Amino acid sequence: MSAPLDLLVLGNAIVDVIARTEEDFLSAQGVPKGAMQLIDEARAEDLFAAMGPATIVSGGSGANTAVGAAILGAKTGFIGKVRDDELGGLFAHDLKATGVTFSVPAATDGPATARCFVLVTPDGERTMNTYLGACQGLSPADVDEATTAAARVVYLEGYLWDPPAAKDAFRKAVKIAHAAGNAVALTLSDAFCVGRYREEFLGLIRDGSIDILFANSAELQSLYETDDADAAVKALRDERDARGKHLLGLVTRSAEGSLVVRGGEIRAVEASPVHEVVDTTGAGDLFAAGFLAGHARGLDYATSARLGSLAAAEVIQHIGARPQHDLVALAKAQGLI
Amino acid sequence: MSAPLDLLVLGNAIVDVIARTEEDFLSAQGVPKGAMQLIDEARAEDLFAAMGPATIVSGGSGANTAVGAAILGAKTGFIGKVRDDELGGLFAHDLKATGVTFSVPAATDGPATARCFVLVTPDGERTMNTYLGACQGLSPADVDEATTAAARVVYLEGYLWDPPAAKDAFRKAVKIAHAAGNAVALTLSDAFCVGRYREEFLGLIRDGSIDILFANSAELQSLYETDDADAAVKALRDERDARGKHLLGLVTRSAEGSLVVRGGEIRAVEASPVHEVVDTTGAGDLFAAGFLAGHARGLDYATSARLGSLAAAEVIQHIGARPQHDLVALAKAQGLI
Repeated sequence: MSAPLDLLVLGNAIVDVIARTEEDFLSAQGVPKGAMQLIDEARAEDLFAAMGPATIVSGGSGANTAVGAAILGAKTGFIGKVRDDELGGLFAHDLKATGVTFSVPAATDGPATARCFVLVTPDGERTMNTYLGACQGLSPADVDEATTAAARVVYLEGYLWDPPAAKDAFRKAVKIAHAAGNAVALTLSDAFCVGRYREEFLGLIRDGSIDILFANSAELQSLYETDDADAAVKALRDERDARGKHLLGLVTRSAEGSLVVRGGEIRAVEASPVHEVVDTTGAGDLFAAGFLAGHARGLDYATSARLGSLAAAEVIQHIGARPQHDLVALAKAQGLI
Repeated sequence: MSAPLDLLVLGNAIVDVIARTEEDFLSAQGVPKGAMQLIDEARAEDLFAAMGPATIVSGGSGANTAVGAAILGAKTGFIGKVRDDELGGLFAHDLKATGVTFSVPAATDGPATARCFVLVTPDGERTMNTYLGACQGLSPADVDEATTAAARVVYLEGYLWDPPAAKDAFRKAVKIAHAAGNAVALTLSDAFCVGRYREEFLGLIRDGSIDILFANSAELQSLYETDDADAAVKALRDERDARGKHLLGLVTRSAEGSLVVRGGEIRAVEASPVHEVVDTTGAGDLFAAGFLAGHARGLDYATSARLGSLAAAEVIQHIGARPQHDLVALAKAQGLI
């Protein structure tokens, strides 16, 4: 029997290769600003050759959430796939260095560790180009049954729908979690990702697979195919699964804070103050980290959302999607924990 | 005949692996705060395993100078040795992306690309642990005669005395530069490095190999084995080579600015304002970059030193030793160029 976790995250194991860039470069390269697009190895090489000087920091949406939650005191594990190369070593090191349990063996052949080329424009917006590499090898065999059954919350990336075998790993984790009476959380990841898998995501919500849903306004509007942000939130509020149960929805709205959608009600929670937006990469990931860590500490939903907002505010004020400041000290200073 | 360069830099080709750390960690690991120490591969692995989450940015003292000078408009080349691995690819990419000419072929076998584990304490001070790896393969064959002869200034790292064959490359570059009537600059690199090679460095100064010397106060005190900073500067002022010629000395003094030591005179130049010291890595490297770029633009020594101070101020206000902001715009805003 494994030691119980507060949070087990399944996600793509990705290292971010970050460069500041001008708006012109995005249009010259034909990449849609603010989104995440998948690229193949040849395109990855071309894009890297064309982009500016880079900073390399571990990333991956779910892994960023795992690290943030662990820093905020949640006992956290991560499941994802790297290759046994230099960047895979960095990714594994960075999880372990923040106290996240990570024991999925690195692939010894096949594609290199995944990398996301993150282009940050002067307004702080990030545009992502992901080469999935070794993530394509994540499979149900990597989901350890005992660990998964013992996790209070299993958190899943919508992005897992991209690599072919990962969705089977996702489904296996849902099944184990629910059989053990634990909760399953999903992040919608990205509006374009929702566009690719809208029916599957709605299916997961409506068949009771998902207990907690994280989304930003754009993702929610993509899910419900509406230009009206309020209508999308109301559609989420009115969702019930096959057994009539509402899910818990957390909707992030950038500088306007977040919404806690629960039991047919919508509650607004203010954003944390931000001095200067440097790089928005990881904002949603760290909101989820703070919320889930607050939840694990037994805080109410609104306070947990405030903790999420605080963690998101920290991460957008520097380059990279991993926290650089002491989140516990920041949360204590604001009286949240 | 190669196109002429304003500046050709010879240095160790190193990628920085940077982590924030507490003072306790330095003492527990037995690393002398603020210095650069050399480590072997086994120690590199142990230190990496023990340190916190890392940010990877290209580094190397001379390479940082090359990049800063190129950003400030100097036509710059770099000579140093990487391996054909992921971090070697990053290093080469980052030079080319800032316009630095770099054509030394990567080693196809032998040790990995060099890495420096940079531990940044809360006061912003950096402590460096360098695994030289592929730098040990730099040899005179890598110093292209035509390129070197055509460079107005050849800039050399004191650190090149560490890898065995690099000092021969260094000497070859000095000989070519002087035969072509061009200037040779040396940075003393680090007080401990000066301790290792004091007699050699004094020999180079006194036999006329060096025309321009960069040093901080600690390095200069180590060179002249004195606890008195003023006495060290005076000793530098009084240096003459075998033909009775003074050299040009640039002495950096952190928040107190810099000194231009020339023809028996000492002139103080104020420091640029700094909002918050985040990571002092690269301060001396970027001072040299700004000074040499100013010199290449035909600015006087004091204005060139101000440009050095401005570049140093930028680099210590963020993680990593490569500029992240538009140095040309900053320099224009201050009326320096």
